[in-house]
Amino acid sequence: MRAAVDLFDEQGYDATTVSQIAERAGGLTKMTFFRHFPDKREVLFAAGQEEHSRLLADAIAAAPAPATPLEVVGAGLDALTATFTDDRRAFAARLRAVIAANGELRERAVFKRAGLVSATAEALEKRGLPEPTASLAAELGVGAFYRAFDRWADPAGRQTLTELTREALGQLRAAAVTLG
Amino acid sequence: MRAAVDLFDEQGYDATTVSQIAERAGGLTKMTFFRHFPDKREVLFAAGQEEHSRLLADAIAAAPAPATPLEVVGAGLDALTATFTDDRRAFAARLRAVIAANGELRERAVFKRAGLVSATAEALEKRGLPEPTASLAAELGVGAFYRAFDRWADPAGRQTLTELTREALGQLRAAAVTLG
Repeated sequence: MRAAVDLFDEQGYDATTVSQIAERAGGLTKMTFFRHFPDKREVLFAAGQEEHSRLLADAIAAAPAPATPLEVVGAGLDALTATFTDDRRAFAARLRAVIAANGELRERAVFKRAGLVSATAEALEKRGLPEPTASLAAELGVGAFYRAFDRWADPAGRQTLTELTREALGQLRAAAVTLG
Repeated sequence: MRAAVDLFDEQGYDATTVSQIAERAGGLTKMTFFRHFPDKREVLFAAGQEEHSRLLADAIAAAPAPATPLEVVGAGLDALTATFTDDRRAFAARLRAVIAANGELRERAVFKRAGLVSATAEALEKRGLPEPTASLAAELGVGAFYRAFDRWADPAGRQTLTELTREALGQLRAAAVTLG
């Protein structure tokens, strides 16, 4: 993925070919690339999506039984955000800029976000949370993560992604109450 | 759009060319098609997105001042769903099936949903609703619309899309309260 971000950064997403990414990533062939990724865009997302969904779902399954829905979601988010150590901040900022600069990548990013909401909602349903509460709690949690990520990816930032995500979830929770 | 749904239905999305859609839509050229739509997928979404966003935003702007955020969203949804008269139900079911059968179309549909949330949130912010309440209320409203649409597009259904959407919004509102 780093090789692809470097290339998209240097010469733009449209001008970068799959062969160039494969070459830069250690001399893979185009054929090998397409065994791992269905299309060029996916190189930025595939690994992250699977790992993020798994981290969230595992921690949600492991959260203590008496926790409220948003406490359960918070446990999932803590597990997810703990993997975003501060040495990843600079790369996250570059990744975010590359995605923001291209419509196809923005579209794929939105699709991945929806996938993360679904995975979270499914993990909550497995704990017995009914619909539409499970989906709504999942939407709040993933929404908090993305809001926090945008702030965290700012190189001038000081707070950890975990702190920022907890803050954002608290704000969304408060907003949910006012809608009642 | 109807010509495209017919073709996707008959022979599949992948096997359908832009030239075939243009031809079926009254003898347009491929070049004319691409003046209206940036890509093949967009033929199913372009008209709807613009119209739906406008209907929602106009009704949100016109809602009475003392209304609560979700009453304002509800006014927007009433205006939007009023345009889905029951003679559109059968076509909606076909459109939904065509989109569900193809990954590229599902991805574009998710992107359009996100666009509708943004347009709704923006209309709410123009009324002075702060973030993240505006985005959350928009998410609830658009979520209600999509949940209701899925039920409405069932040919065996009896309720109007307006009734189903009001019901879904009420359920999401109740769920939001339990998360507080």
